[in-house]
Amino acid sequence: MGLFSKDIKSLDDLFVHTLQDIYYAENQITKALPTMIEKATDPQLKQGFQTHLAETQNQIKRLEQVFQMHGHTPKGVDCPAIDGIIKEANEVAGDVADKEVLDAALLAAAQAVEHYEITRYGTLIAWAKQLGRNDCASVLQQTLDEEKATDQKLTAMAESKVNQKAA
Amino acid sequence: MGLFSKDIKSLDDLFVHTLQDIYYAENQITKALPTMIEKATDPQLKQGFQTHLAETQNQIKRLEQVFQMHGHTPKGVDCPAIDGIIKEANEVAGDVADKEVLDAALLAAAQAVEHYEITRYGTLIAWAKQLGRNDCASVLQQTLDEEKATDQKLTAMAESKVNQKAA
Repeated sequence: MGLFSKDIKSLDDLFVHTLQDIYYAENQITKALPTMIEKATDPQLKQGFQTHLAETQNQIKRLEQVFQMHGHTPKGVDCPAIDGIIKEANEVAGDVADKEVLDAALLAAAQAVEHYEITRYGTLIAWAKQLGRNDCASVLQQTLDEEKATDQKLTAMAESKVNQKAA
Repeated sequence: MGLFSKDIKSLDDLFVHTLQDIYYAENQITKALPTMIEKATDPQLKQGFQTHLAETQNQIKRLEQVFQMHGHTPKGVDCPAIDGIIKEANEVAGDVADKEVLDAALLAAAQAVEHYEITRYGTLIAWAKQLGRNDCASVLQQTLDEEKATDQKLTAMAESKVNQKAA
């Protein structure tokens, strides 16, 4: 997308652009998760990140399916938002001295990633329905449900254990 | 925070660092909102952004109150996450040719901002409670409730009107 062009002319264009944005984001997340798995100390948190990596790989396949259903070749566009969220996660993780405090920081960073995905999938589903693509909305809904479930699991893990160990 | 120092040694340090992060973020949001108000066409959306600007200014005051309650001087630290989210909003807005499609894009961008705030305030409240600072948690909860209400209002506006006009 160029700063001086106006490439998005319709809601359909905006839908495809946002699909490309989240496709790039999911791919960046698969690159960031192995470091988070490595840095996490709590076994349940480590396992949670591992499970989410497998889930993310499946979510990428679902996005490829939606691109194809909608007549487009899967491709990504730069997504400064996810780049910023991941950069911040790495910076904070690099500043934490204690392993249990690091777990709390990693968990919070993962929830920031989840919330970015939740907002984008929520928007994509609303736009797909508006465009008469309930079939695409239904595939995207499966991912949104997974992201919300992951966020809730992370909250439960933080409140039941990780924050207590960090304090 | 330096990349080679380990300045965060406790959950309390992490709490203060994240307060500084969201303090910077809220200040950046007050700088970004006037452009969004100017660019929005739908009067209800424009008014929604205007209301949120006033709310954000009040949320900054609440953060200053929490800093003081916790014995710290209010200050911000760079937050690459919010910088990325705002950069992406500006880039997409610059690429949209049609005013009604632009409204849909601006609304989605505002929801990405809301979700960033929701995840950070949710984390801060959990940490404040863990640190025995229910007084700080209670002030932060007022903001979290506002952010969630704003997000729901935006969803309702998107689904009842803005997306239809854009399609």
